[in-house]
Amino acid sequence: MNIYDRLEELGMELPKPPTPAGLYMPCRRVGNLLYTSGQDCRIDGELAYSGKVGQDLTIEEGYEAARLTMMNCLAVIEQELGDLNKVNKFIKLLGFINTSNDFIEQPSVMNGASQVLLDVFGEAGKHARTALSANSLPFNIPLEIEMIIELK
Amino acid sequence: MNIYDRLEELGMELPKPPTPAGLYMPCRRVGNLLYTSGQDCRIDGELAYSGKVGQDLTIEEGYEAARLTMMNCLAVIEQELGDLNKVNKFIKLLGFINTSNDFIEQPSVMNGASQVLLDVFGEAGKHARTALSANSLPFNIPLEIEMIIELK
Amino acid sequence: MNIYDRLEELGMELPKPPTPAGLYMPCRRVGNLLYTSGQDCRIDGELAYSGKVGQDLTIEEGYEAARLTMMNCLAVIEQELGDLNKVNKFIKLLGFINTSNDFIEQPSVMNGASQVLLDVFGEAGKHARTALSANSLPFNIPLEIEMIIELK
Repeated sequence: MNIYDRLEELGMELPKPPTPAGLYMPCRRVGNLLYTSGQDCRIDGELAYSGKVGQDLTIEEGYEAARLTMMNCLAVIEQELGDLNKVNKFIKLLGFINTSNDFIEQPSVMNGASQVLLDVFGEAGKHARTALSANSLPFNIPLEIEMIIELK
Repeated sequence: MNIYDRLEELGMELPKPPTPAGLYMPCRRVGNLLYTSGQDCRIDGELAYSGKVGQDLTIEEGYEAARLTMMNCLAVIEQELGDLNKVNKFIKLLGFINTSNDFIEQPSVMNGASQVLLDVFGEAGKHARTALSANSLPFNIPLEIEMIIELK
Repeated sequence: MNIYDRLEELGMELPKPPTPAGLYMPCRRVGNLLYTSGQDCRIDGELAYSGKVGQDLTIEEGYEAARLTMMNCLAVIEQELGDLNKVNKFIKLLGFINTSNDFIEQPSVMNGASQVLLDVFGEAGKHARTALSANSLPFNIPLEIEMIIELK
C-alpha cells in the first residue's frame, strides 16, 4: 500500500521537517541504511510540549509528544528520501525520556512513537527499541528519538 | 567450538527469552546485522535485581545483574536465529546503568556483561562498548543493554 | 586532500589513542562500518576536564572537552585503520553530556566535537547526531562520545 494513502486514511499529516539544532545533518545514509539524528516534538519551530514526563507532563502528554516526535522523524526521512515508500523497514529506535529520578514508565511513553510506525507501515514498521530516562534534554524537550531505517 | 558445548563447560544455561515490555520486537535483522532491543535482568518474568547501583545495590550486585542481562541478550538472539553458532562476532554494546548522580564506576558494572561474551565466544566475543548512567530506567531495573551483532 | 596535511594546516595533533577502561575494544569493524567505543577527554591517561557541565564546568570548557574527546575518537580510528584517509565519511555521533537536571544546552557542547569533523574532513565530516545529558559518567568525565564511520 502507498504510504501517503495510508497517512491520509489515518488522518495524519507530515509536519515540516525540523532543522538541526547544531552542527549536524538531520540524517545520514550509508549503503541501504539511514540514520536519523535525535528528533523532538517541535511543530513549525515551536515545541508542542516541554518539561519532564511524570513531573511537568503526564504520561498521556508524554505519549502524545512521542507521537509528534515520530512524525518529525518521518518528516526528516521523507526530506532525505523524497518518498517514504522507499523505506523497506524500520530497524531500531532509541528513545530518551526527560524525567525525574524515579519515573519508571518509559515504555508507555515510547509506545506513542512505536504505534505511529505500526499504524502507518504495518509489518515494515516493526522495530527493535530501547527506551530509558535522561536527567535532562536539549531545550527541555520531553523526549528525543533517533532511529535506523533500512531502505529498499 | 560449538557455543552450546562451551556454555555447558562453563555451567551456564540460557534463560527463557524475555518478552518485550512495549510495542517493539526483541530484535531486528538487517543484512548480516542483528540489533537487539534493550534487555534487563528478568528471570522468568521476575527481576532478579532492581534499584540504583551504588545506592540500592552494590557494584557486585550490579555486575551480577549485568551478567544476567547479557544472558537475556543471548536468549533473544537465539530465539531470533535458532542457533547461537550463527553469530559471527559481537560488534557493540550500549549499556545504561541506573545510578545516582555521583556514581562513576559504570565500567566495573558493565564488565559483568562483557565477561560473558569473552567467556562464551572468545575472540568473536570482543566488542566495542559505551557504558554510562541513566537517572532512571523502566521498572527500576539496575541496567539496560542493547547490542549489535554480525551474523555468519 | 590528505587528512594529515589538513591536520597540520589546522595546527592539530592527534593524541595517543586512549586505552579502554574495561573489558572492551577501542573500536570494532563490520563490513565497511567502524563503531567506536565511548571516548572521553583523557590526554596521556589524565583527564583534561572532569565534572558536570553547567555546574563544575562552563559551556566553553565543555565545548573544549568535546573537541578533545573527538580528537581521541580520531586517534582510536587511526589506531584501527592505520590511516585516517581510509575514512569515507562520518555517519553518526552519540554524545552524552554529564550535567545536572536543568542543563539544556547539550548541542552547544557537542558542537565542539562536530566542528572538529567539519574542519578536518569537510563534506565527509558531516554527520547525524544525538546529544543529551547523562546524570553521571565514568570517572566523572564531562562527556562521552561514540561514533559510526563508513570506510572507503
